[in-house]
Order: sequence, then C-alpha cells, then structure tokens
Amino acid sequence: MAIAHAQPALPIDVKPLGSSLPGARSTALFKTDELEVMHLVLHAGKALPPHKVPGEITVQCIEGTLEFTADGLVCTLHAGQLLYLPGGVVHSLVGVGDASALVTIVLRK
Amino acid sequence: MAIAHAQPALPIDVKPLGSSLPGARSTALFKTDELEVMHLVLHAGKALPPHKVPGEITVQCIEGTLEFTADGLVCTLHAGQLLYLPGGVVHSLVGVGDASALVTIVLRK
Repeated sequence: MAIAHAQPALPIDVKPLGSSLPGARSTALFKTDELEVMHLVLHAGKALPPHKVPGEITVQCIEGTLEFTADGLVCTLHAGQLLYLPGGVVHSLVGVGDASALVTIVLRK
Repeated sequence: MAIAHAQPALPIDVKPLGSSLPGARSTALFKTDELEVMHLVLHAGKALPPHKVPGEITVQCIEGTLEFTADGLVCTLHAGQLLYLPGGVVHSLVGVGDASALVTIVLRK
C-alpha cells in the first residue's frame, strides 16, 4: 500500500458539501496499490485541463454539474450520474456552477 | 473489454431509487478489463453472504444503511459514505432497512 489517507473498511464521507462547497478544495481520499480515489471540487468555470492516466477511471458527480470532455466528445454529468473511461484517453472537466465529484482511478503497475 | 452494460464516457444514473427501492433488484452497470461496477440492492435484512474477490473494492452506500463486515470487523455504512477493502478479504453485507450501494471491483488479470 502506498499513501493511505483513510483506512480500509472504515466509512469515508462523500456526501454533497452543500453550503461549504464554495470554500472547499479537492482532497485525496486514499491511494493503495490498485486504486486512487479523490474528492474533486471544481468551482464554477474552473477546469481540470486535458490529461490522461494509464488506468481506467470513473467519475461520479456528487453535486452540481460537470462538463466532461473525452476524445472531443462532450457530455454533461449531473449529480447522481457516473461515467467510466478507458485508460489512456485524454479528458478534461469543467465545473458548470460549483460541483464536486468522486474520481476513482485504477493504478496500473 | 469484456461485457459492456454501458458505454464509456456516457452518464449512468446512480441516484437513490427512492420509492422504487422496495421493488428494485441489483444490476451490473459495466464490466471492462480493469473494473466491474454494480448497483447493489439489499432489502431489509437481506444479506450478501461472506465472500472475497481478488482485487480491491469500494462500496458506496447510495441510500439506506448497510452493515458491512470484513475480517470480523463490523461497520455501519450510511448513505453518502464509502469504504474500500483490499483484495482477498472475506466480507459480507446486510441491508439495515432497504438500501442500495455502488460496488466497484478492480479486476486482476
């Protein structure tokens, strides 16, 4: 196990932040040999610029709305929606209003 | 890619089922080379008996409350909470009232 921000088999809160969302920042939840999970905060108009990772990812919008772009395809991800993406695909995210998401990345050895 | 129940980069609803939870059943959301993600429904008192999988997992309670047991340690997982577990650890789940969860499994080659 690499850096552990939380312990196995113990609950981690991933609820909507609500009124504290405007002042919130992205946080790493945990990173192990196989998985990295982070709580991503994107304020209105802010972007995670185009990038790629070797492993597959899932992005689950927790609150607000995100615009997700992968390989030129744009989709809107609302709270309560999830998508996945194969590894190696360039993608970017923009907050449409303040938004938060759970991002899960499979780490390849 | 193995069996795909959903397409990459397209939103999948993982919202609480609310009034349709009592009649709902577990569904596979997608399975790829690296990940299997399912929407697990556990009605009140129903259990997913002790089992283990080779890869790491995350369990995110979407609605209701689950009792999660791993290696003899019991924890209660409420809606909006997530936990992770290393691969190879025997675990079980019980619905405390009707509950649903998002289960993500890293598939090891």
